[in-house]
Amino acid sequence: MPRLYVALTHYPVVNKRGDTIAAAITNLDLHDISRAAKTYGAKSFYVVTPLADQKILINKIISHWTNGFGAAYNPARRRALDLIKIKDSIADAAEEINGIEKIYPKTVVTSARRHPSSINFKEFRDILQLGQPHLLVFGTAWGLAEPFIDQADYILEPILGRTDYNHLSVRSAAGIILDRLLGTR
Amino acid sequence: MPRLYVALTHYPVVNKRGDTIAAAITNLDLHDISRAAKTYGAKSFYVVTPLADQKILINKIISHWTNGFGAAYNPARRRALDLIKIKDSIADAAEEINGIEKIYPKTVVTSARRHPSSINFKEFRDILQLGQPHLLVFGTAWGLAEPFIDQADYILEPILGRTDYNHLSVRSAAGIILDRLLGTR
Repeated sequence: MPRLYVALTHYPVVNKRGDTIAAAITNLDLHDISRAAKTYGAKSFYVVTPLADQKILINKIISHWTNGFGAAYNPARRRALDLIKIKDSIADAAEEINGIEKIYPKTVVTSARRHPSSINFKEFRDILQLGQPHLLVFGTAWGLAEPFIDQADYILEPILGRTDYNHLSVRSAAGIILDRLLGTR
Repeated sequence: MPRLYVALTHYPVVNKRGDTIAAAITNLDLHDISRAAKTYGAKSFYVVTPLADQKILINKIISHWTNGFGAAYNPARRRALDLIKIKDSIADAAEEINGIEKIYPKTVVTSARRHPSSINFKEFRDILQLGQPHLLVFGTAWGLAEPFIDQADYILEPILGRTDYNHLSVRSAAGIILDRLLGTR
């Protein structure tokens, strides 16, 4: 099984005008992406935000399904949300992975735009088969901030549909990308 | 371009106990699936419910983004939500498609479980290339009711990940299935 870790970051991302911001948590991002991560065998799902109040909110959402009424009502949801680990930064997530794997993960960022150095899905699928740990990073709001993208080890090519419409939700994009990388065909 | 129509139905679906119910609308189902449908070139996105109050709610959500503040703030969202048509039943959606295409669509249902007569993604991808209209139906809650599944022309195989965890959200499943059927590779 490829050693793929998934992260959803709320900072540094850009808003509609291109300003770098810390975005708010969306409840269903946590549910949908943790369920997809569980389905495709990702090792952990890091939810990244530096904001203290947002961390409290994430813990509240998770605990409803892992300790509260929801845990008994829907155990499958608990199994997915158990993958979530909350971190201040992608660097902190990478540090934790280093502690587990005894090697730092390569970081792979996703973007709705093609970059000169983008690698394609087939290439990254092949890289994953080699067995080294990788941290696949999704951005919320209008996507990851450019300086952050530039620091990554790899930039994954955007998802192409059949039209010029290029505005999937991060929840849909995460599911489709995990399927392209790890799906059984 | 294949003539694929997408439907999300809230009746007849089953709850956790297997009872047939009419499920409530989830706001982000409308957003995520319309954005995926637009990305992959689906012709329309039928949102199906027989409940009058739920239709009012759908119209309220859509009109915020197509007429209200949201239309100016985020025109891309409007382009996706413009694909939505509200219908009482899948039969009504098929009737409308017949009016457009001068032929009734074949219905294709999705399910998280494999059925004896399931067709696989490659088979359905090939069928779509032949050019006849098809209506791809997703169920909310715990999935489409069995008698409804049995009446469909085709049952699409479930999405396989890499684990035994088989609980994607309908939003994620719709994105992944559209990518498998219509994605550019």
